[in-house]
Amino acid sequence: MYYDDLLPQIQESIEPLFGYGKLADYIPALAKVDPKQFGIAVRTIDGLESYSGKAYQPFSIQSISKVFTLTLALQTVGNKIWTKVGKGSCETSFNAIAPLECEHGIPRNPLVNAGAIIIADALISHIDDPRATILDFVRTISGNENIDYDLEVSESEKQYGHRNAAIANFMKSYNMLENDICDVLDLYYLHCSIKMSCMDIARAVTYLANGGYCPFAKDDIISLKEARKINALLFICGMYNASGDFAFRIGLPGKSGVGGGIFAIVPNNLSICVWSPELDDHGNSLIGIKALEEFIDKTGLSVF
Amino acid sequence: MYYDDLLPQIQESIEPLFGYGKLADYIPALAKVDPKQFGIAVRTIDGLESYSGKAYQPFSIQSISKVFTLTLALQTVGNKIWTKVGKGSCETSFNAIAPLECEHGIPRNPLVNAGAIIIADALISHIDDPRATILDFVRTISGNENIDYDLEVSESEKQYGHRNAAIANFMKSYNMLENDICDVLDLYYLHCSIKMSCMDIARAVTYLANGGYCPFAKDDIISLKEARKINALLFICGMYNASGDFAFRIGLPGKSGVGGGIFAIVPNNLSICVWSPELDDHGNSLIGIKALEEFIDKTGLSVF
Amino acid sequence: MYYDDLLPQIQESIEPLFGYGKLADYIPALAKVDPKQFGIAVRTIDGLESYSGKAYQPFSIQSISKVFTLTLALQTVGNKIWTKVGKGSCETSFNAIAPLECEHGIPRNPLVNAGAIIIADALISHIDDPRATILDFVRTISGNENIDYDLEVSESEKQYGHRNAAIANFMKSYNMLENDICDVLDLYYLHCSIKMSCMDIARAVTYLANGGYCPFAKDDIISLKEARKINALLFICGMYNASGDFAFRIGLPGKSGVGGGIFAIVPNNLSICVWSPELDDHGNSLIGIKALEEFIDKTGLSVF
Amino acid sequence: MYYDDLLPQIQESIEPLFGYGKLADYIPALAKVDPKQFGIAVRTIDGLESYSGKAYQPFSIQSISKVFTLTLALQTVGNKIWTKVGKGSCETSFNAIAPLECEHGIPRNPLVNAGAIIIADALISHIDDPRATILDFVRTISGNENIDYDLEVSESEKQYGHRNAAIANFMKSYNMLENDICDVLDLYYLHCSIKMSCMDIARAVTYLANGGYCPFAKDDIISLKEARKINALLFICGMYNASGDFAFRIGLPGKSGVGGGIFAIVPNNLSICVWSPELDDHGNSLIGIKALEEFIDKTGLSVF
Repeated sequence: MYYDDLLPQIQESIEPLFGYGKLADYIPALAKVDPKQFGIAVRTIDGLESYSGKAYQPFSIQSISKVFTLTLALQTVGNKIWTKVGKGSCETSFNAIAPLECEHGIPRNPLVNAGAIIIADALISHIDDPRATILDFVRTISGNENIDYDLEVSESEKQYGHRNAAIANFMKSYNMLENDICDVLDLYYLHCSIKMSCMDIARAVTYLANGGYCPFAKDDIISLKEARKINALLFICGMYNASGDFAFRIGLPGKSGVGGGIFAIVPNNLSICVWSPELDDHGNSLIGIKALEEFIDKTGLSVF
Repeated sequence: MYYDDLLPQIQESIEPLFGYGKLADYIPALAKVDPKQFGIAVRTIDGLESYSGKAYQPFSIQSISKVFTLTLALQTVGNKIWTKVGKGSCETSFNAIAPLECEHGIPRNPLVNAGAIIIADALISHIDDPRATILDFVRTISGNENIDYDLEVSESEKQYGHRNAAIANFMKSYNMLENDICDVLDLYYLHCSIKMSCMDIARAVTYLANGGYCPFAKDDIISLKEARKINALLFICGMYNASGDFAFRIGLPGKSGVGGGIFAIVPNNLSICVWSPELDDHGNSLIGIKALEEFIDKTGLSVF
Repeated sequence: MYYDDLLPQIQESIEPLFGYGKLADYIPALAKVDPKQFGIAVRTIDGLESYSGKAYQPFSIQSISKVFTLTLALQTVGNKIWTKVGKGSCETSFNAIAPLECEHGIPRNPLVNAGAIIIADALISHIDDPRATILDFVRTISGNENIDYDLEVSESEKQYGHRNAAIANFMKSYNMLENDICDVLDLYYLHCSIKMSCMDIARAVTYLANGGYCPFAKDDIISLKEARKINALLFICGMYNASGDFAFRIGLPGKSGVGGGIFAIVPNNLSICVWSPELDDHGNSLIGIKALEEFIDKTGLSVF
Repeated sequence: MYYDDLLPQIQESIEPLFGYGKLADYIPALAKVDPKQFGIAVRTIDGLESYSGKAYQPFSIQSISKVFTLTLALQTVGNKIWTKVGKGSCETSFNAIAPLECEHGIPRNPLVNAGAIIIADALISHIDDPRATILDFVRTISGNENIDYDLEVSESEKQYGHRNAAIANFMKSYNMLENDICDVLDLYYLHCSIKMSCMDIARAVTYLANGGYCPFAKDDIISLKEARKINALLFICGMYNASGDFAFRIGLPGKSGVGGGIFAIVPNNLSICVWSPELDDHGNSLIGIKALEEFIDKTGLSVF
């Protein structure tokens, strides 16, 4: 297929980079993963798929899940979600608390931890069984009924999640949360613990490449306009405080997770997901970014 | 006695100021207090006492309690407490969280909320029954067995204490707390809820005016050197971010609480405590500061 | 032509918005401009042009000039310019100085004042007559030999430019500037004072819509890759701290100036420039942003 | 006399500490000083003097001069000087610019660079020949007609003073300065360049130990109340961001300069000045602070 030759070449070229990053050690359950793994999967909006490496190996999607909960929030809460969370860029670390103080408890965007906690709170307020709904949603858009939460990971994060508890309590002190802090954090840790493979994710985010249309749901799951807005947001702040550098080098909307996954969107063309657990200083997959950069360099794909 | 004429004059002169400050409304149990109250008490190191107004009316001492827990921590933990909390000044609000992020979870000093939470944690680690010990200590140094915690206030603070929970969780994420966060916060809210009168406090802090010697314990409770160090700290940061202004206008070591109490120390001479519940923008008793200023102006007392 | 009907419609629809923004009053020479003016011009990469209103009226391009000097710096200094200036987003105001302190004198990107001053310094170091070269470059890419500096404006900015002088001196203290501060600031104020019309600018930035190719120079002025990188940078930080909001609403790379001009790029399609002097709170043309939003809404153009 | 035995003991005990600090290398003229020098001088308010080491060797007083210009400003401008400069503590470095941005151009206190520049500006506005007046004032209060500016040092500071130029321009952008920036900075560098010996300084600051009375002027140069207020300010922020630590260890009002001098005040008793050029990380004389600490430990002097 289209990228059947390219993806193995990329896999080969990144081999020498194993060992330069490091695992997310602050979540004990993630620190046990074999670091020398790599997978890559591409899916075009026409439904053509290519892959290389461990593209079908499920991993902890972590912050990538924030894109799915944001999409669900737009579906259920609608535009008024933007009264509780900004759309701005993020100079600081994903778990920084100081910016929250400057802005009176309003997170800069839904992709930093604080913003995703706001989204989790909104989902609890607007959905009967958010835990089931989120999982159902992710299974539907990726066409994979086997996707599930990893309770060991969510428990592990909760146990060591004092920073997120600080952020949630801080926002609560500004009346930014409607529900019980523990319930909100439980849901947040739960959706971060979802395990998906590169191919699952490449399929699931097709709606962002395809104007809101999901081929597995056989329906628009959000409008074209909303899909574009999510892409704009991903471009601005999908890689935390490395977003500027990612925009400069890769030039595509995308989202990373500390499990080592990163997806990117070429609008009206394809979605791509890479995975390799070792992280760089910003918490993004070191090899994943290199692989995406090579993909872009070789294909010349760009939004600009 | 010495100040029997002066204190009623001061009381009279502050009368017109009622209504210009406002109660600490973020603690519901404190917001119910009658705002138009005033008390003042002075005790010299020779044991002479004067007072005016509601000097024997117990009120919530709040942050004034931080001086007592710090003293207990110096008694039991000793100088190594300074590895976990700074001795610096404090430009920002008493419940600011941003400075903690700059300094990797180490509070600037033991008199901001974060620092007092560190002290509470240390007391739990080093004392068998810190709850009883703190109360016992305060009763002893003030010579009043009736002093007690106000559980309604401590519960009220806990219920609305998301900001402090944020601070505690944040420090925990830096491994700055040894004990369970809930236990630490419970102790913190408890000691803040102690009710004492102006006279109780003026008596209790005599050791800071008298080189560490407490007339009710009939013993040094800390050394002369430590008493001086606490005074230096109170001078630098006893009034939160209004400390510079307080030093300039009053020029004495002192400590305020959001219950409306403020004490000040004239070393080798006397201790004074004023109380009036309405607060200024910095969270200090508006009338209390005026009364202290008049006391200083009329008596010419100063450390300089 | 293509947009001959749409642009007058947009002009009509923005009429009611006059009076809601305000002129850039900190540059006296700019504060004298008649506020109730509007112009809009579009040029496709095929060379088709449409316009409405005062599209041929020259105005002070101000920060839009930073795109031209950056392009010149990439031509002459090349990639090593990125050792002296970042590519990151910008949460704070365009003339903030605190971020510089955090990052030891390195500006976040070449589009904030500090970054553009670094670029001006680099041009002085690498070009014999930067003053003539910049003007020549702008005239060439817009095909208009009449474009010129406005010395009254540059003098006015210099006279009231204490903030920029602070920024330049601050960077000099970190050895970030090679040349005399006055020379650097003179060049900076000079290029900000260039007067161009909407049509001039729409033509001049064609290279960003057209993979680096300039139809007036009849040559690539930068490579496709560099053009894409500049677009990524414009997307991330072309509207200062309103960049996130602009990305969300308009979703195109663009750049604003406090003279009231804004251009935007639809890659491989067209460039557009609007002008209206009244500014919003972020320093961007209030009516200009509305006009661009309507253009996007009506045409459905997007990079995503 | 009183301290004739103690001071040589202190000198002996600090000998092993040479080599642990470093010279202020950002002012070339200061970097040429022989680092292994030490002097100490004490003067009681009764006029008794003791000294050891190079107590009569003139050195560059640098920031110590800020106490003299503040005193002159209180004499000539009076209390309205406090509308242009704060009285607060200072968590950040003496030449930080970020705090100025937070507080809209108003310096935290007259002892940080920004504050002293405000004072220099006020002196230019209120005094006919501030250059002559400052020198005359310092000569009078120290009883030494030979004290003078060191033009080589002031020129050297000016040449490398981009940070101070940044601060001055920044404040000018907030309309905080009335006079030409160059004139203000010239006066600032000039008064910082004054050369005095430990004995000169110990004598000169007698008025702060003696309720405003200067034995050489044979008159009060400021009121008792103002002397106390200056002492309070010195206590809070005389050692920049090491003020809290200095208060804790030494517990006296004092002021340091990057030339290696530090004076301290024991109110109603004595003034003391030490000098040793090697600085600690905060810019205070490393050996100077140790010597003062030993002086306090041995004598038991304290304000508390």
